[in-house]
Amino acid sequence: MFTNIDHMAICVKNLNDSIKKYEGDLGLPYSYRKIVEEEGVEVAFFKTNKINIELIQPLSSTNPVHKYIEKKGEGLHHIAFQVDDIEKSLLELKKRQFNLIHHSPRNGSEGSKVAFIHPKQFGVLIEIVQKRGEFNEQV
Amino acid sequence: MFTNIDHMAICVKNLNDSIKKYEGDLGLPYSYRKIVEEEGVEVAFFKTNKINIELIQPLSSTNPVHKYIEKKGEGLHHIAFQVDDIEKSLLELKKRQFNLIHHSPRNGSEGSKVAFIHPKQFGVLIEIVQKRGEFNEQV
Repeated sequence: MFTNIDHMAICVKNLNDSIKKYEGDLGLPYSYRKIVEEEGVEVAFFKTNKINIELIQPLSSTNPVHKYIEKKGEGLHHIAFQVDDIEKSLLELKKRQFNLIHHSPRNGSEGSKVAFIHPKQFGVLIEIVQKRGEFNEQV
Repeated sequence: MFTNIDHMAICVKNLNDSIKKYEGDLGLPYSYRKIVEEEGVEVAFFKTNKINIELIQPLSSTNPVHKYIEKKGEGLHHIAFQVDDIEKSLLELKKRQFNLIHHSPRNGSEGSKVAFIHPKQFGVLIEIVQKRGEFNEQV
């Protein structure tokens, strides 16, 4: 089911500082940044040859990403797989008794629809993403 | 400098159980597994459309990956970027005062040469990989 990785996400304390490091020091190709109000975070995307890298800064101390950083430090946060039809994927995951954080799709960036699978299941937080029509190569 | 992601690595306690979960539940395309004696770990690779996913199980309780799992739990462990010439890349990183774990290349899997950048620098453990000639699309 999951064969198409869309992006890797890294949680950071300060997006300005981290953009400078990832763009300036590592030379990752910076694409854009954006506040995602629904999630209480600001994100920045870098487009590498194969997948995107997302940096996430929590905007408040009550945000789950803030709590994650407090517990585990800055670092790799989740892996996102692209799916063709997120509603269908969620139904299939429910049928197979996956431990879902979101039972219905939420709005992601660039018009995408997203949902998360609980990290308890794999030790890794997994996101599934359906891109908006024009961004989805598979549509 | 870093634009070509080779793989993402996830550390796990039990490779057999995790291969079952990642292949059986997530449907990731399993490729091969291998003991890397030099590193004291056993690894398994899954080849997705774009990048590979590596599962790593430490083979002893003194292994750094074992200590990582004890501290942070199973989960995302490092991100690996492919480079054309690892000796040249290491020289450049030294010049730019990167905090390197390995100052010269080590043997990786499938005849590759690898080295790691300390996680203190980015909050993320970063590997650089030079593939063996026939595996390196850029050679």
